[in-house]
Parts: sequence; structure tokens; C-alpha cells
Amino acid sequence: MEEHYIGVDLGGTKILAGVFDAEHQCLATDKTKTKPEEGYDAVCSRIVRAIRAAAESAGIDPAKANGAGIGAPGSISSDESQVLFAPNLDWRDAPLKADLEAQLGCPVWLGNDCNVAATGIHRLELEAKPNDMVSIFLGTGIGAGIITNGVFLTGATRAAGEVGHMVLDPDGPVCGCGTRGCFEALASRTAIFNKVKSAVDDGGELTPMLEAGDHSVTRIRSGKLRRAIEAGDPLGKQVLDETCFYTGLAIANLCNLLNPEVVALGGGLVEQLHPFMLPKIRDAALERIMPGARRVRIMATTLGDHAGITGAAILAHDHA
Amino acid sequence: MEEHYIGVDLGGTKILAGVFDAEHQCLATDKTKTKPEEGYDAVCSRIVRAIRAAAESAGIDPAKANGAGIGAPGSISSDESQVLFAPNLDWRDAPLKADLEAQLGCPVWLGNDCNVAATGIHRLELEAKPNDMVSIFLGTGIGAGIITNGVFLTGATRAAGEVGHMVLDPDGPVCGCGTRGCFEALASRTAIFNKVKSAVDDGGELTPMLEAGDHSVTRIRSGKLRRAIEAGDPLGKQVLDETCFYTGLAIANLCNLLNPEVVALGGGLVEQLHPFMLPKIRDAALERIMPGARRVRIMATTLGDHAGITGAAILAHDHA
Repeated sequence: MEEHYIGVDLGGTKILAGVFDAEHQCLATDKTKTKPEEGYDAVCSRIVRAIRAAAESAGIDPAKANGAGIGAPGSISSDESQVLFAPNLDWRDAPLKADLEAQLGCPVWLGNDCNVAATGIHRLELEAKPNDMVSIFLGTGIGAGIITNGVFLTGATRAAGEVGHMVLDPDGPVCGCGTRGCFEALASRTAIFNKVKSAVDDGGELTPMLEAGDHSVTRIRSGKLRRAIEAGDPLGKQVLDETCFYTGLAIANLCNLLNPEVVALGGGLVEQLHPFMLPKIRDAALERIMPGARRVRIMATTLGDHAGITGAAILAHDHA
Repeated sequence: MEEHYIGVDLGGTKILAGVFDAEHQCLATDKTKTKPEEGYDAVCSRIVRAIRAAAESAGIDPAKANGAGIGAPGSISSDESQVLFAPNLDWRDAPLKADLEAQLGCPVWLGNDCNVAATGIHRLELEAKPNDMVSIFLGTGIGAGIITNGVFLTGATRAAGEVGHMVLDPDGPVCGCGTRGCFEALASRTAIFNKVKSAVDDGGELTPMLEAGDHSVTRIRSGKLRRAIEAGDPLGKQVLDETCFYTGLAIANLCNLLNPEVVALGGGLVEQLHPFMLPKIRDAALERIMPGARRVRIMATTLGDHAGITGAAILAHDHA
């Protein structure tokens, strides 16, 4: 009988579900909005609905799948059954494993979203299976999955890996967490949006980046930023250069601290913009990495937004 | 027969050797200058001389010791036999284990100086034996020993733990490594000296801190800075406040990244000044640590400059 594994990437904005075979090949996916404001039970139902839609596309019965893995945006209990704390979903001690198992009829395992995506990259993209690896995901926020001595770094209270809240400039802009100059406040898509918005608020001209789409600056998706860069937009180039500089700085700090073999970059910004970003990020990083740690491969994942669902399916595969 | 273990803290400036019993109690010590400019063989001879002097004070024959541990300022080969790279000593691939064993007649093991000092703190001071711990040593430079998931963090090429070269302010002063705004360039004793010197160079008044000792600013030992702070020296207070701010920032970054149970501070600056420094360091750190990682104990080691020799003797004890 054929084996099937379900992988889910549960984000603050969207839910992506995929069905995979035993060789980690994706057979079908489904995407839906998360709508966390509707509450925990509604989000659980939406996860189940996305899984059922993906399973239907793949022509399988989800109850007969060998297992499902869920990458969730928060800290996960050590028995992989509960989401301990997920600020973007406003969840605390959510018994997601039991609730999904009851609705799906197959076994479910939980993982932190960044760790799960890092697992996808580690298993599918990296032949050498490095013992020391950092994966950084640049999107609305900034997260990371860190492997040291061959295992995921969890920390004493399962709160490790908050790369996005590494202070890189104590005089920098205020972050969502309240601290000034966090990496996330300097280099996330939210930071890019804030910089463009304040340039316009300061009386700056509407640049081609903004004129190309709507004239408001309420949303700047990564794809729009890419098209602006391709069109030679000066404001777009400036904010992207700053993002690359701080990302390089963060990578240098992580390399000097953790001395990884590989730094893998993912997330929406990187997926859309890595040809522009990678050379600048590498320059800013390598200039600051100590000689002993400089033999590091800084790469962009080719899995794109499938890194999360792939890693989640691998989580299920490893446990089932 | 009684057991004896020798512990050596090999620094860029001085060598401290101690003789310990099986309960890690120090029986005698000896201190000498390192004089790395005289070359590797001369430094080896000085290490042996310091060990012999400490052993004589303790009334033992070093050749009959159960073993000697050496904490060296650099990266150590995985078989603990060679100092791979020690910039302060200008050593590369130095076969220190074999050379000392030949001269001492007892087995020798090498460790990184910061890891060895962290071992001393972990074993003698911390009842709970934390699985996740960061030790930071503030002196002429800044180093760290980091334990994650119960083991020392070494990284892919044994270059991990370079906390001193974490960039905390990209517009900060240039570090000895060439990068701007490293933690070491902002908060080490060298940074304090540079700040005082440039205040005087800029036409600032000689403050009581400087007038208390010699009128030059060629050397500011930690003890002198302590006496200046106690006397209410305004320049001394200002530079120490800055040191505490950046140390708190660095600790926050490390807590958000590694989520340790304990952050232990040591080194000359902390030994002399922890009553002034700890409250300010804690304030700056806790303000920036994410809620999930905030349950961390930030402490100063009470082992003082014995942390290194104690940990080195424990290294020997564990191996012998």
C-alpha cells in the first residue's frame, strides 16, 4: 500500500496544506486564510478543511494517511502535542494534536514552523546533512531554525531561536516587541513597508514602486517589491539594500556565535528577491565573519514556500 | 594515595597555574607573565615553570599529579591535543599537549579558555547543572563559553562562541578585528581605555580616575576603575554605564537566541565591579528579552580569576 504524509504550514495569515508520498514528493496542495481572529476552533476547522481539499486533489482519504505534521508559529511542548505560545494566533497551551487527530482520524505531530521548514531544507536540499546550520526566514516577520551539534536548538524553556529580536542597532526603529533596533524592525517586509511609508509621509515623491500598483502604501507584497526593483525604482533599491545590509550583519553575528556550515535563507522576501539580495547579503556577512568561521555556505532555499509543508510532512514521516 | 590535578589558565598576558585536590579545592597557585613575543617554546617553559612553582607550594611532585588541564585562548583540536589558532599568542597548530607532557611527565588535556572557565562555574557554582548556559568573560577582550542541549557549542570548524564579535552598533567604534561596533569594541576593558583616552585627547579634563594613579592613560586596570567609581568619578561612571548597557544588549541577544537558564559573568572587569554593574546589566537585558526566555538567572561568578584554573583542573579530573 502506498504511503502518504500530510504537511501543514500554519501561519498567522495563511494555511498551506500538502500531501506527500514516501519520497517527500508533493502530490497536491491547498491554501486558505487563517483568520486567527475567529478563534482556535475556527482555525482548527480551517486546517482540517485545507487538508481535506489537498487530499481530495491527490485522490486520497486523509483518515488513511500515515500521519500529518503541522508547523505552527510558536513554541511547541516537548511531547509535540501542544502549541504553548503563539502570539500571532493569540494561542496559549492549545491542544492542537489531540483536536486535529479527532477530526482527521490520522496521527498528528506538531513542530515549530521555522524548525519544520529548516527540516525540509536540511533533508531535501543539503546532501552533506550539516551538524551546524542556521535557517532564516524573512517575511512579514523574521524567524529561524537553528541546528547545533546535530540537534535543534530549543533552549531551557523552548523559546530559543528568536533571531528576529536580535538587536542590531540600539538607535534603530521600534520593533513590534517594544525594543529598538531588532533585526525584524530593520529588515522584515514590515520594516520595508514602514520605511516606504515614512518616506512618503515625509513628503517624498511617489516612486514608480508605488505608482506601479495602487497609490496607497497599505500593502507592499514581496512580488511588488521585486517588480519595482526590476524597473529600477530608487526607493525600492534603497530599502532592499538596507534589508540586505542588516541581514548580512545578522548572519555575521550568527556565524561568529554558532559557526554553522550552512546559512539557508527562505521566506517570501527571499523567494521573490534572492537574485538581488544574495550577493549583497554575502558581502555584508563575509566582511564581518571571523576567519575561523568564514567557510560557510550562504544560500537561498529553492523550496520556496514549500519548505514548511515539506518539512512538516517529513516530521510526520519520521514519527509514523 | 591522594589525587592531585593541575589547572592552568593561559592568557595573552599572564599564566595562572593551580594545584587542586579531588574535590576541586585549590591548594596553591603561581602566576607569571606569558610574554608571547618570546615565542612558543619560551611560553611552554613558562607554563612548566608556573606549574612547578605551584606544585612546590602545594608540596607535590608535578610528575606524580593525576593530570593537568590547560585553558588556552583559541580554538582547540577535537582530540584536545593542539591549539589550532590563538591570535593573541600568534600560535597555529601548536602541539601543546605533547610538548607539556614531555616536560611535565603527567598527562595533559587542552580546552578553550572560556569553555574551561565555564566548566569551573558550571560544576562548582551551579547546583542545578543547567543544560543551556552562557558564560561571558569581560576583560581586555570579551569571550564566552556556551552550553546548548547539555554540550559545549563548538560549531562546524571549532570557531563558535565569538560573542565578542557580535555587532551591536554598526556605527560604533572599529574593533581590533576590523569590524565596526563589535561588543568587544563597545564594552571590553580595551574599549573603556579607548573611551577615556579619547575624552582626554578631545581636551577633556583629567578626571579623578586618572589623577588618582599616574597621569597618563596608557593603562586602566579594572581595580583602578573600581576605585574611581567608588570615588564618584563622572567619566568612570559614564564609561562603565555604557559597558553595562552594551553587555545587557549582548545578553538579551544571546537569551533571545539561545534561551539559557543561566548567564554567568566573569573576567577582570566583573570581578572588580560586579556590585556596580550587575543591576544595570540586568535592567538593560531584561527590558529586551522576549517573554518566553525571560526566566533566566544573570549572575556574576564568585570564582573570580580562579574560574579558569578550577575548570582546567576539572578537565584533567574528568579525563584522568
